[in-house]
Amino acid sequence: MVRIGLLTSGGDCQALNATMRGIVKTVINLSTEPVEIYGFEDGYQGMIYKRYRKMSPSDFSGILTRGGTILGTSRTPFKRLDTPEADGVDKVAAMKETYRDLKLDCLFMLGGNGSTKTANRLRAEGLSVIALPKTIDNDTWGTDLTFGFTSAVEIATKCIDDIRTTASSHGRVFVIEIMGHKVGWIPLYAAVAGGADACLIPEIPYDMDNVIAAIDRRMQAGARFTIIVVAEGAISRDEARLSKREYKKLVAERTSPSIVYDIAREIETRTGRETRVAIPGHTQRGGQPDAQDRVFATQCGVEAALGFLEGESGFMVAQRSGKMCRVPLEEVAGKLKYVDPGSDLVREARFLGISFGDEA
Amino acid sequence: MVRIGLLTSGGDCQALNATMRGIVKTVINLSTEPVEIYGFEDGYQGMIYKRYRKMSPSDFSGILTRGGTILGTSRTPFKRLDTPEADGVDKVAAMKETYRDLKLDCLFMLGGNGSTKTANRLRAEGLSVIALPKTIDNDTWGTDLTFGFTSAVEIATKCIDDIRTTASSHGRVFVIEIMGHKVGWIPLYAAVAGGADACLIPEIPYDMDNVIAAIDRRMQAGARFTIIVVAEGAISRDEARLSKREYKKLVAERTSPSIVYDIAREIETRTGRETRVAIPGHTQRGGQPDAQDRVFATQCGVEAALGFLEGESGFMVAQRSGKMCRVPLEEVAGKLKYVDPGSDLVREARFLGISFGDEA
Amino acid sequence: MVRIGLLTSGGDCQALNATMRGIVKTVINLSTEPVEIYGFEDGYQGMIYKRYRKMSPSDFSGILTRGGTILGTSRTPFKRLDTPEADGVDKVAAMKETYRDLKLDCLFMLGGNGSTKTANRLRAEGLSVIALPKTIDNDTWGTDLTFGFTSAVEIATKCIDDIRTTASSHGRVFVIEIMGHKVGWIPLYAAVAGGADACLIPEIPYDMDNVIAAIDRRMQAGARFTIIVVAEGAISRDEARLSKREYKKLVAERTSPSIVYDIAREIETRTGRETRVAIPGHTQRGGQPDAQDRVFATQCGVEAALGFLEGESGFMVAQRSGKMCRVPLEEVAGKLKYVDPGSDLVREARFLGISFGDEA
Amino acid sequence: MVRIGLLTSGGDCQALNATMRGIVKTVINLSTEPVEIYGFEDGYQGMIYKRYRKMSPSDFSGILTRGGTILGTSRTPFKRLDTPEADGVDKVAAMKETYRDLKLDCLFMLGGNGSTKTANRLRAEGLSVIALPKTIDNDTWGTDLTFGFTSAVEIATKCIDDIRTTASSHGRVFVIEIMGHKVGWIPLYAAVAGGADACLIPEIPYDMDNVIAAIDRRMQAGARFTIIVVAEGAISRDEARLSKREYKKLVAERTSPSIVYDIAREIETRTGRETRVAIPGHTQRGGQPDAQDRVFATQCGVEAALGFLEGESGFMVAQRSGKMCRVPLEEVAGKLKYVDPGSDLVREARFLGISFGDEA
Repeated sequence: MVRIGLLTSGGDCQALNATMRGIVKTVINLSTEPVEIYGFEDGYQGMIYKRYRKMSPSDFSGILTRGGTILGTSRTPFKRLDTPEADGVDKVAAMKETYRDLKLDCLFMLGGNGSTKTANRLRAEGLSVIALPKTIDNDTWGTDLTFGFTSAVEIATKCIDDIRTTASSHGRVFVIEIMGHKVGWIPLYAAVAGGADACLIPEIPYDMDNVIAAIDRRMQAGARFTIIVVAEGAISRDEARLSKREYKKLVAERTSPSIVYDIAREIETRTGRETRVAIPGHTQRGGQPDAQDRVFATQCGVEAALGFLEGESGFMVAQRSGKMCRVPLEEVAGKLKYVDPGSDLVREARFLGISFGDEA
Repeated sequence: MVRIGLLTSGGDCQALNATMRGIVKTVINLSTEPVEIYGFEDGYQGMIYKRYRKMSPSDFSGILTRGGTILGTSRTPFKRLDTPEADGVDKVAAMKETYRDLKLDCLFMLGGNGSTKTANRLRAEGLSVIALPKTIDNDTWGTDLTFGFTSAVEIATKCIDDIRTTASSHGRVFVIEIMGHKVGWIPLYAAVAGGADACLIPEIPYDMDNVIAAIDRRMQAGARFTIIVVAEGAISRDEARLSKREYKKLVAERTSPSIVYDIAREIETRTGRETRVAIPGHTQRGGQPDAQDRVFATQCGVEAALGFLEGESGFMVAQRSGKMCRVPLEEVAGKLKYVDPGSDLVREARFLGISFGDEA
Repeated sequence: MVRIGLLTSGGDCQALNATMRGIVKTVINLSTEPVEIYGFEDGYQGMIYKRYRKMSPSDFSGILTRGGTILGTSRTPFKRLDTPEADGVDKVAAMKETYRDLKLDCLFMLGGNGSTKTANRLRAEGLSVIALPKTIDNDTWGTDLTFGFTSAVEIATKCIDDIRTTASSHGRVFVIEIMGHKVGWIPLYAAVAGGADACLIPEIPYDMDNVIAAIDRRMQAGARFTIIVVAEGAISRDEARLSKREYKKLVAERTSPSIVYDIAREIETRTGRETRVAIPGHTQRGGQPDAQDRVFATQCGVEAALGFLEGESGFMVAQRSGKMCRVPLEEVAGKLKYVDPGSDLVREARFLGISFGDEA
Repeated sequence: MVRIGLLTSGGDCQALNATMRGIVKTVINLSTEPVEIYGFEDGYQGMIYKRYRKMSPSDFSGILTRGGTILGTSRTPFKRLDTPEADGVDKVAAMKETYRDLKLDCLFMLGGNGSTKTANRLRAEGLSVIALPKTIDNDTWGTDLTFGFTSAVEIATKCIDDIRTTASSHGRVFVIEIMGHKVGWIPLYAAVAGGADACLIPEIPYDMDNVIAAIDRRMQAGARFTIIVVAEGAISRDEARLSKREYKKLVAERTSPSIVYDIAREIETRTGRETRVAIPGHTQRGGQPDAQDRVFATQCGVEAALGFLEGESGFMVAQRSGKMCRVPLEEVAGKLKYVDPGSDLVREARFLGISFGDEA
């Protein structure tokens, strides 16, 4: 008998179900022993509070195309793993107990950076854990790609496409908020795919003067409209110079629900151009996975299952230079993969005329 | 020789180009005389300031599927038609002059309520004007349907679909802002099509207690998530009791860019449930027209052209009980078509369990 | 206690589940008594052979957006209702028995023309039956609209859109087969929505000379490509002159799987233009329902439920001039609603330059 | 002054315009000299017969999202480059002359395998040629990816998704023809992304007994439906054993327009299951490019332009292990990149239970 546990942790994405289907189908098809499957509800919460379902292979049929996660997910309560919660529960001990009680042979954890850190801790505590790189943000260290990313880029790009017709008709500037608090992968790809005119991301602090200048250049060249993609976590040069504490204070004091409202207001004031915002928001993690995402998610699931069947654990599935591989959890836990301001795609975007707001 | 002018006025929509194509193709194909076509830029502005292009039939080829308007549009400057602008221009006189100078036989005006009012004035001044009911809001009086509406409903519904997967995964309440400042047609249709749990529209003032109660009922019945559709112009019972002036003051003093932020905050506070917002915004008027919209837009264009070729003018094209017809401009100018709170669709929505926040 | 049965019969469509959800939600929400729901599998087969599931309201949750039917469907075995099948089963008697055994108060039947005929027979035999107008073909007599239709038109139109880019790039003629064996509603709407150049439907026999002439006119006017929409059951004038028996023989002797292959070959031979076919086929009844379809399907479901709760039966739900209503089953059973060659939309299509192949 | 020529050759795809936009924007933005752009019409035909347009940068604005090619394309007339055409034209000489007459500094050629062979010949004749790997089929040797591929996979996958709902409702087997005459990249990716049950590709000859067995296994396990993806050029083991000449003869003698009709008939006969076909056909190269395709197409365009500006030519742009690079034309000309039957994705697909019809 083989016993496996599954959980999905952190912000959801489109290809979580596709990934779990890949794991389960492969383990069932290749295992020489009978397989028992346990699905934990709402991420690590399910492990801590023993909320789980015994699942059958048929639960994973027909879910390839369904967004979200059939297990539910949560971000809490993992700010500090060793601090007991209000209810006094020792989280690590509780998870170990659940793992032992169910006699699990492996826990498959689909999650992003924070979740991988927890997975690494469980590994250090002696559990067999295999992580799978879930996040629309593509910011997981150690892998070129995460599942969720291509689907999110498609949706962000569709938003730019749709905004283009109305921006053009009215001769307006549009400031579009694209997901990415700490990293700018989705905004960067969507800006290139959507043909945006400027792209402000956390990794490249912007100067509003440069953004205004980019708009002016377009208008002088006869363009009717301008589209500016802004990451949720875009940061100005002035803000980038602040200490971490000062910046946190500044963010906490913001009254508008998104910086795109502030940026739009400043652009309208300084250029005299009608300026509007668009915020695709959570739709970027919603809906169905695109085909590329389903293929990659499936590959992640298969690779994780193979690793397990070969007796390995303590790794995260990854793709590097187009090949699936396994990287030790301790190497990747808690690290972020940022957009390199000197990378090819940023450079290519500049050649196309996309301003990052940092021009000399 | 036959000379026609075209303009698109007010907020843009997906099927403006499809409609113009319908007009031009029909006039060209059926007219016994050569046809000259003038396209005014940016709505009535083009007529006032003599900004127009002489166009050829081929300019209208291949635009059936393109959103926005190839002529550009604007909402200004028509608050008061008889008040001269800052530049001292007499707007009505200027438009009459342009019309006469170009020896137009007819002006085809694609616009919503405000624009139809202006069209009616031009008619009263002796110009031949034919209006076509453009608006995503479906609030034009005198017609059952406007072009733009079905496309906007599709996009609003797609937003609800996409939000559903993430709402379900995280067990959240989502408050989705759908376009409609004065009327609730898009929110109503999208709420039914998207399977929302509540729908707040301007025509039916809501009581937040009822909305909270609806959420509670769902949660008690075991639902993980709740989706609440809110029209831009949704109004609470308390607000509805204010005088027009008081209400205007209240709206002016709002600091958040949309009421959905305020509603979401109140829901989160009162229910203790994680609550998020989604604002599809201008994407609802962007992108390509759907098939139904293209058919209806084309029918509007053909009917307008036929009216012109039969020597009629001073009417707006309309659809009533499934038949295309023509209604006098003076009958419809400046009137809004509201959702009737006692109408079939509202009643049907209630049977399905959708709360309008006005339950006894 | 109230007991209702549900079945879906004939070719499937996108909005069957949405319709059933509308029925069940309304009955559950409005009924003063407890409700028992029986779902028959694979259409009338389930009734004859007692294959059914007792269902709970939650089975109808989350199915609004899912195409196909959760009950399964079948077209057989109803060529002759009174002829026993190979297994000797008396079909009518068996269905009556199932109905009585389950003590049903009503059978909700979602089906097209053939299925409605059977429903009417069951009504005549004393069962309470309510029919709902399901078919992508929109050919149900007695209602302006059927559910499935708008979704199918969207897909057919999307096919034309996609073909346009490749037709244009290569300078080709494309012949696109659109669903419609006996009627041309989908081809007609898709041809207008997709901007096709010709549209051949069963109701308007075509002459290939006219089609060739239409292509030639386009090419002479400088067009690079031509798109011809052809209903599955399009018929030439020569074929239309045959007796029913002769035509049947001719159809039976065809070797190519669709007439579009034959039409394309003839066009290529006669015009010397590269000609290709496209056959969206069963995708036209697949995938998710569009928003309009979901709204209409829901309205059908609600209306059927209301009729039942008001003690009515023996009717089909319909929409006429934009209003939901109920029409006696005996009035509609087995009748087809054809495209009227003199109708507004055909006339409008001609004004746009769409050839129906019957030009004088 | 810098003078560049552009042409698109062979079957069209979704991202040709996006690629050309990338080339032109980069050359314009980075070139220190004025740039003259010549667009050849309909591929190499335009070069041979001197059909070209002088183009401005604005011709390449707004085309990022438009499928097809604004230049037109053709597959002819290049079976044998040195054999004069019927009109006696010496093709190579004519192209050299056009190149010299226009004083071109470089020809950018967007094309697949056959087209690259011609490009290599022109290079050998002394022209500066840069090739860009265009093809939905992803079969260009020397690059991991071609533009067009991801868009085609999305469409093929969408077809499988749509067919699934109707296959499931009716309990049918569906045989879906996916593009790929010589290689199976699109079918393979779409089969994994769409969750197909079998996938027959040219690189892995199938035995119908295995396909039937796969269907039987599914049916015995309780599945209602089976989806079989078949590449246009799928080949049975018996056919694979034929000599090239015998196989060609066999193909020429086929009467059905696609092998899926024959395969479907055999399945229906042998399993007794209702079996239908679906043929997305040319829609797989139509419509708009997806976001991934636009990003990659743009990167190809930029890289080609950079090579030119750095004084290089005679290469094809490629992506290897995630990095853009340049490979000598002579290395890649006329070579096909096949699916390796032992590759990771094939292996992974097998683990998921996808049959390739070659099971032992």
